[in-house]
Amino acid sequence: MSESVKYLLGEEGIPRHWYNIAADLPSPPPAVLHPGTGQPIGPDDLAPLFPMALIGQEVSTEREIEIPEPVREVYRQWRPSPLYRARRLEQKLGTPAKIYYKYEGVSPTGSHKPNTAVPQAFYNKEAGVKRLSTETGAGQWGSSLAMAGQIFGLEVLVYMVKVSFQQKPYRKALMETFGARCVASPSEETAAGRAILEKTPDSLGSLGIAISEAVEVAAQNDDTKYALGSVLNHVLLHQTVIGQEAMVQLDMAGDYPDVIVGCTGGGSNFAGIAFPFIGEKLRGGKDVRIVAVEPAACPSLTRGKYAYDFGDTAKTTPLVKMHTLGSSFVPPGFHAGGLRYHGMAPMVSHLADLELLEARAYKQTECFAAGVEFARAETIVPAPEATHAVKGAIDEALRCKEEGVGRTILFNLCGHGHFDMQAYSDYFAGKLVDASYDESELAMALAGLPSVAA
Amino acid sequence: MSESVKYLLGEEGIPRHWYNIAADLPSPPPAVLHPGTGQPIGPDDLAPLFPMALIGQEVSTEREIEIPEPVREVYRQWRPSPLYRARRLEQKLGTPAKIYYKYEGVSPTGSHKPNTAVPQAFYNKEAGVKRLSTETGAGQWGSSLAMAGQIFGLEVLVYMVKVSFQQKPYRKALMETFGARCVASPSEETAAGRAILEKTPDSLGSLGIAISEAVEVAAQNDDTKYALGSVLNHVLLHQTVIGQEAMVQLDMAGDYPDVIVGCTGGGSNFAGIAFPFIGEKLRGGKDVRIVAVEPAACPSLTRGKYAYDFGDTAKTTPLVKMHTLGSSFVPPGFHAGGLRYHGMAPMVSHLADLELLEARAYKQTECFAAGVEFARAETIVPAPEATHAVKGAIDEALRCKEEGVGRTILFNLCGHGHFDMQAYSDYFAGKLVDASYDESELAMALAGLPSVAA
Repeated sequence: MSESVKYLLGEEGIPRHWYNIAADLPSPPPAVLHPGTGQPIGPDDLAPLFPMALIGQEVSTEREIEIPEPVREVYRQWRPSPLYRARRLEQKLGTPAKIYYKYEGVSPTGSHKPNTAVPQAFYNKEAGVKRLSTETGAGQWGSSLAMAGQIFGLEVLVYMVKVSFQQKPYRKALMETFGARCVASPSEETAAGRAILEKTPDSLGSLGIAISEAVEVAAQNDDTKYALGSVLNHVLLHQTVIGQEAMVQLDMAGDYPDVIVGCTGGGSNFAGIAFPFIGEKLRGGKDVRIVAVEPAACPSLTRGKYAYDFGDTAKTTPLVKMHTLGSSFVPPGFHAGGLRYHGMAPMVSHLADLELLEARAYKQTECFAAGVEFARAETIVPAPEATHAVKGAIDEALRCKEEGVGRTILFNLCGHGHFDMQAYSDYFAGKLVDASYDESELAMALAGLPSVAA
Repeated sequence: MSESVKYLLGEEGIPRHWYNIAADLPSPPPAVLHPGTGQPIGPDDLAPLFPMALIGQEVSTEREIEIPEPVREVYRQWRPSPLYRARRLEQKLGTPAKIYYKYEGVSPTGSHKPNTAVPQAFYNKEAGVKRLSTETGAGQWGSSLAMAGQIFGLEVLVYMVKVSFQQKPYRKALMETFGARCVASPSEETAAGRAILEKTPDSLGSLGIAISEAVEVAAQNDDTKYALGSVLNHVLLHQTVIGQEAMVQLDMAGDYPDVIVGCTGGGSNFAGIAFPFIGEKLRGGKDVRIVAVEPAACPSLTRGKYAYDFGDTAKTTPLVKMHTLGSSFVPPGFHAGGLRYHGMAPMVSHLADLELLEARAYKQTECFAAGVEFARAETIVPAPEATHAVKGAIDEALRCKEEGVGRTILFNLCGHGHFDMQAYSDYFAGKLVDASYDESELAMALAGLPSVAA
């Protein structure tokens, strides 16, 4: 127990720029298309939804994008986040592997989401926006945007997926504590919501539906813009502070990862930890295996199609090429609400297509088992989303044990489970089931993909 | 926004010893008495309940007690905890005061409790103990001991005050995640519990009752010792890492507090932040005002009597002189469950008697209002207990504004409110009331104090 378990950087360790992987790609990702014309869209098409600074980041190919000082000032409250060596877990597993994890649960809302909520609120405030509308799954994103809006003086309106709204009432209370309004989605407040409720009055909701509602409100109100917590290039970009810090911290430990594991819903925390290392490799640096772990109940990377699709259920967004289960696919309710999205970030999908990462799907009960094992060893209770990364890392470590090889594993523990203890209660009570989707519904959703020349 | 808001120490900033205020007192605290003989007790009287190392700390008058390396190793996961300057709160209040807060919510269980749970588990393990029994109010202590027990390989049995058990089911889930067993108190499992249930079947429980149950189990089982989360000298001692770190961090900021504010239930987080500064003053250092804030519904310092009393309801503990509402006093249910104790730590009571601190009582709704104001400014949601300290600090800052004087205020934000969001929900819904006790019940409890020559 004499070696260090925590690698902490001082404030000067907060990155000064975000890392843009677009600068290092062997080929650019497919264009984003206008759903009406099928032609590539330009910045002006996005202007009703986003301030120009974020649109600029969305399409930028500059390698480094400077982090504004007011954003770094807010980051300073919890960044640099710690990197830990999971020594007690290694001992319990009896693995020769070294397991490191970057812990994003130290943020005020307990996840990685503030990394992008803060700059999004900042740029919107700079552009004179009064209100932000958004969707949220488990509530990690909604509470983070609520917090960021409060800091910069913006109203925040959150459409929260109904199944999570019901399972996680305390995330709503957190959003309200930060002064935001939180509405269960589908709601009666938007045309998109009413259309769903007419067809499916007891709809559990989905991120796709909640996005439709939030986008509709932003499109119809001049003082309101839309904010997304994952999927888009600029969101993934903001999360790269995670991987950049981890790289320096691993260097302090005299290490470099052989394998990086992250959980994927929309793809942002995964991109945050992985992109800086993938960039290093693309620029001729060290090789590293990248493993994306997703829920078996919503497996866009492992079971979806790489095709053009809408980002939302009401089909109001531009068309993006991504691994998708179909925008009409509504995944079953499970506790990792932040991973319940029908598509994968276009940039992550593009990297998968370039074979720069591998994907794996796990069921929720095996992830909770891994989460409890981790909590008992390392004392941090992972969020349900993060248990997927934990499970992936443990499996990698056990493979090392089988093979007798001592690899270095890095994973992103993207958030704590303090707001998700009902799920742990259910797990201990044996009430947690592995919900699965209907194969015919998936087939139908995939058959309904828009026909666009790829 | 250019000056720093966070003062973070490296690992080398974790104190190497705990600070024992007994070394610097102008007069020693009154002796602890045997309830049967009325004579001072010796170490052997405590041996059935505690390992000798902790009994030694309980009665020590050494100024510095070394922190064992395995304890510092665990501390390293979250210590040194950050010290923040509450710049946004200062701006919102328009105060000339500087407000600093030490944030203990960064621990794995979200409060200051692991600071003592870890050494208690360590010393018990060293002494060959197999199981620890304890009580918990809001669950912060129970979950912390569960965590520490898991690290050092001890079973943990927690009696949780029934009203909190019902209000905060997720704290129970957290204890279970760490492998502990959590029982609602009063329970049918102990003679003490059964006696209460016979008289009052719908008893809400109290810390005094839960202590009786936990002590009974430890006294009757050779492999089991008892652990207490507050009140006792050795517990307060372990918490002094808080104030020691804060002193160094304030020095980094070029500051020294004029006022220190802490919330008091049993007194441990308050002692943790205040004792090192009081010691400094007692040794001829700078003067500092010390403000203890307690709940108006359980006001031991402001309404209690300074007298010998039992630590528990079943009257099984030794007699200690403390500010007490009477060991039979059952405070009404309110959300700051960690402050629902009939007595105040003997050492804190002694300091109050020596006029080294002043006390103040607040109602819960005004504390929640302060908590929300703080959360919206500083992005951290305080635990209900901690909102009392927040309210005290805000009042001090507003006094500075009235007087036009720029004092330096330090308070201890002893924990976050992630597990207490139901209370915030209730507050926003206007459902939170200021429960108060019955004056005649308090009078009766005080009349029932044991008659001992003080």
